[in-house]
Amino acid sequence: MKNFLDADFLLTTDTAQKLYFEHAAKMPIIDYHCHINPKEIAENKGFENITKLWLGGDHYKWRLLRANGVSEDFVTGGADDFEKFKKWAQTIEKAIGNPIYHWSHLELQRYFDYKGVLREKSAKEVWELCNEKLKDKDMTPQGIIKKSKVNLICTTDDPADSLEWHKKIAADSSFSVKVLPAWRPDKSANIDKDNYCAYLDALSAAAGIKINSFETLKEALKKRMEFFKSMGAKACDHGLDFIPFLPADEKEIESIFKNKLSGKEPSKEEALKFKTAFMLFAAQEDYKLGWVMQLHFSCKRNNNIAAFKKLGPDSGFDCINNNGSAADLADFLNALEEKGTLPKTVVYSLNPNDDDAINSVLGCFQSEGIFNKVQQGSAWWFNDHKLGMIKQMNAFANTGLLANFIG
Amino acid sequence: MKNFLDADFLLTTDTAQKLYFEHAAKMPIIDYHCHINPKEIAENKGFENITKLWLGGDHYKWRLLRANGVSEDFVTGGADDFEKFKKWAQTIEKAIGNPIYHWSHLELQRYFDYKGVLREKSAKEVWELCNEKLKDKDMTPQGIIKKSKVNLICTTDDPADSLEWHKKIAADSSFSVKVLPAWRPDKSANIDKDNYCAYLDALSAAAGIKINSFETLKEALKKRMEFFKSMGAKACDHGLDFIPFLPADEKEIESIFKNKLSGKEPSKEEALKFKTAFMLFAAQEDYKLGWVMQLHFSCKRNNNIAAFKKLGPDSGFDCINNNGSAADLADFLNALEEKGTLPKTVVYSLNPNDDDAINSVLGCFQSEGIFNKVQQGSAWWFNDHKLGMIKQMNAFANTGLLANFIG
Amino acid sequence: MKNFLDADFLLTTDTAQKLYFEHAAKMPIIDYHCHINPKEIAENKGFENITKLWLGGDHYKWRLLRANGVSEDFVTGGADDFEKFKKWAQTIEKAIGNPIYHWSHLELQRYFDYKGVLREKSAKEVWELCNEKLKDKDMTPQGIIKKSKVNLICTTDDPADSLEWHKKIAADSSFSVKVLPAWRPDKSANIDKDNYCAYLDALSAAAGIKINSFETLKEALKKRMEFFKSMGAKACDHGLDFIPFLPADEKEIESIFKNKLSGKEPSKEEALKFKTAFMLFAAQEDYKLGWVMQLHFSCKRNNNIAAFKKLGPDSGFDCINNNGSAADLADFLNALEEKGTLPKTVVYSLNPNDDDAINSVLGCFQSEGIFNKVQQGSAWWFNDHKLGMIKQMNAFANTGLLANFIG
Repeated sequence: MKNFLDADFLLTTDTAQKLYFEHAAKMPIIDYHCHINPKEIAENKGFENITKLWLGGDHYKWRLLRANGVSEDFVTGGADDFEKFKKWAQTIEKAIGNPIYHWSHLELQRYFDYKGVLREKSAKEVWELCNEKLKDKDMTPQGIIKKSKVNLICTTDDPADSLEWHKKIAADSSFSVKVLPAWRPDKSANIDKDNYCAYLDALSAAAGIKINSFETLKEALKKRMEFFKSMGAKACDHGLDFIPFLPADEKEIESIFKNKLSGKEPSKEEALKFKTAFMLFAAQEDYKLGWVMQLHFSCKRNNNIAAFKKLGPDSGFDCINNNGSAADLADFLNALEEKGTLPKTVVYSLNPNDDDAINSVLGCFQSEGIFNKVQQGSAWWFNDHKLGMIKQMNAFANTGLLANFIG
Repeated sequence: MKNFLDADFLLTTDTAQKLYFEHAAKMPIIDYHCHINPKEIAENKGFENITKLWLGGDHYKWRLLRANGVSEDFVTGGADDFEKFKKWAQTIEKAIGNPIYHWSHLELQRYFDYKGVLREKSAKEVWELCNEKLKDKDMTPQGIIKKSKVNLICTTDDPADSLEWHKKIAADSSFSVKVLPAWRPDKSANIDKDNYCAYLDALSAAAGIKINSFETLKEALKKRMEFFKSMGAKACDHGLDFIPFLPADEKEIESIFKNKLSGKEPSKEEALKFKTAFMLFAAQEDYKLGWVMQLHFSCKRNNNIAAFKKLGPDSGFDCINNNGSAADLADFLNALEEKGTLPKTVVYSLNPNDDDAINSVLGCFQSEGIFNKVQQGSAWWFNDHKLGMIKQMNAFANTGLLANFIG
Repeated sequence: MKNFLDADFLLTTDTAQKLYFEHAAKMPIIDYHCHINPKEIAENKGFENITKLWLGGDHYKWRLLRANGVSEDFVTGGADDFEKFKKWAQTIEKAIGNPIYHWSHLELQRYFDYKGVLREKSAKEVWELCNEKLKDKDMTPQGIIKKSKVNLICTTDDPADSLEWHKKIAADSSFSVKVLPAWRPDKSANIDKDNYCAYLDALSAAAGIKINSFETLKEALKKRMEFFKSMGAKACDHGLDFIPFLPADEKEIESIFKNKLSGKEPSKEEALKFKTAFMLFAAQEDYKLGWVMQLHFSCKRNNNIAAFKKLGPDSGFDCINNNGSAADLADFLNALEEKGTLPKTVVYSLNPNDDDAINSVLGCFQSEGIFNKVQQGSAWWFNDHKLGMIKQMNAFANTGLLANFIG
């Protein structure tokens, strides 16, 4: 009988094994989109214990704990770290079929030399073994990144960010992995958010430009883009509920913007018009800089307001939305193509139902001299599991050129 | 060669056989949602022939007959029962891949000892064999329920129902299976239906409360809920086109309700507001009583008006709708969670495309001390087949804890 | 080891081989919907080279070339035919999983006796071999059609078309395959298109009826339908963005139509009302003639405006849309059923997500004396691949009678 998750895990045919061991396994990791905090890489602190490493900030795991009825005290709260780990062991026992089950056990095998199964009964053994191992001096963010054969990491950064940690990482000659910033200007797009004006102040300060119009907002962003470019940025990223597409003239956009500055909230339609103008501007600047534009959408965030008030964003209360329009994506890309300003584009929808429609849209906007200039990114977030990845790659292969997939 | 649908049907691996025979096969059936008529259980009459048993009320089978071009006379009409059965045999021959093909043959094997295949040629043989078998004194509703190792049945009942048949079943000491009512108040929610006011009269009478306002409607319903509770009810059920979510203040709701009473029909928006208020109230009362709230949606009923006029509802003319909004489900659950009145919830969408979005929404509203307090129910109606169930369980496993699935 | 795409390709079980070789392989092809140009059949010209045959008009292949970054000059432009073929060879190398990979290699095996793999390295060999083979006198449209055991072809034709090529084909006693016209009146439905009035002039001329009202439009169409019928037409086809369903009274429709004639463009709502009226009329006439109505929808065309201006329609810039409403399909079919004018209907949605909802809708409108009077057609366009076809047939089998599928 095969061992549990052995080296051949998922590689059930000779062809699969050959492709993996002779090719994929040898290749470095180019992580062109992630949410690793550059501060953590720069400071390179070790981990006190496996709970801090695994459960300290991973809202995927937090959701499973909550689904198992675990009190928030043992999730994000102040409970003892070993008690938290026991809850996690009880939870993961039930997660057959969930990629976290596979990832966690692969991590136990490949980083902690543990070949068994994590369950309530083995929790203490795993806890001790992992914590012992975490004392190794290479079990730090940088050590783990190196061990994983990572060549390049693109983080996700706000235009107002000083990128000080990227500077420190670049200056650290002992760490050769490239850690580049990626431009994520969502906060200046979301005119319908409460804290929008406060954010503009921060951006004004960072850019040294007083933002009092859409025009000056664009000037400030362009200045910060130049700074990001000087720091090595090659990609941007947009987190959108859906692709906005309701074009309006510049005058109307300015009026919506100035109303917001003077305290008058935009209507839904006005917010949509503003976001459309914002995205057309942002994409055009990406194109000019040669950056890759990443679009993440079909997401509805912070659904549990009570939890949001306690824990803030990105704590496990987001969901897939199903209001994305293939037509709006097509019209948005067409508007850029018509002006000759469509950048290289990577599209991620959180809704797996969108795959076929998205592929068919993207197939209308390819371009001379580039392999699949516009394409879907890897199966994202709630889709980042075996079936989700297979489904998405099949959808691409069925109507496109799988060999051009950037993975 | 394996026998047709033998004991190992669908159990193609050792693991599957072990799980089934050592575990699943030994477990009783807890049927927490069904549409069995309690009168039929209480009266416990035998079946005159297999046509009466199989084709007497099963609109799944009626649809297949109609799809095969069979005249309505042989479906719900007055044709001879054997002639109807022959039409059914001709039809099921063509239903490879349809769960009715499997269910029917499993029933023939396990309740009628017939191991062959039902087709036109075998129709007479099967007809005679089944009818002979139906003379057995345990081939009655109660006998079949007992033989199927059922422990508990929750029926589906209107708030105005006297539950007299439930009383009779409970009083029948020879039948130990629990048959509990479940609360289904759709008729008092559907303010846009023609017969709404007539229904309120029936409900007024049952509750002994004159309903002349939304307030008194709520009082009447609460009184009936107490009665249902006294009869053992532990769950409610809502049949919805989609999850309504357009909150309005009590005053506006009262005005919409009173307009209806005085003959002024609600606009679409008003109906939506009323249904939202109704569902928020209903869920809150479920929570107070500790009931499980079941939500069935993404269904469009009675599409063929000509057939509806002849045959009424639930006769095989309903369809999957695709207008369900994940955002509305999220906002509805959030509204309850914010007030601390979210009951245990089981969600069923008729549209299989919704699985991933629904799972991601439900993952935002779990709760301390309960395994998956909110979760999807089993693959429902048009999805209740091998591929549909696998798809739905995979969707749950991919992002949740499959072991917590209530099945 | 099995040979590449040998005779057993995809036939991995004994049952599959038996079904295919003893049944499917022997059957003729009845192609009830295609876009072959009858002129090409009638003229029956040979092909100068494999590029002309394969890449001359196939926008499926054009999309792959563009996705591979190939310049338009080598796609639809003036580049040398062998250079174009080399680009194609470089492209198809990357198309593992794409049905064009399979189709192309099956064509190479079965029409050109080439058993190898087309890739850049083999491009010259394949080019020469194919071009040599294309000199055979049976490698013409008629020869290829005969070799493929085709019995019947239904083309797609405009009501204003003279059908002269169909006449010539019918008169050619050396070619026994039936080539029938199919009625596709989209141009008279699309009141929101720029060239609508110019088209009406052409239709007026063809019908010999001056079209100056919706009433006279209907008269002209009826007259042309009689002509199509006299030419053997048995089916119509409608290319729709989505199923329109917003009924209005005749007077309003006339007013919308006359406004258009006098230069006043319809609003979105008016166009929807007109299209609804048009489709209800068209379906009723189909019913009277005993024609099969085909509905193609969930498509958004000509998305890349710059490319459309250069290359026109049907050049590879269309996409799947996701705004189709199951409710509108149900209501449209019901409106016909209520008047007793629902024709035999074949439904094709470009969005594979729609399969389950569509099947459930169609199951509400079956009819006595016909096997599956309304049903889905084969997996269409972007869905016409192994996984798409399996998915669609499974969806049909799960809730219907697979044996009644017209394929």
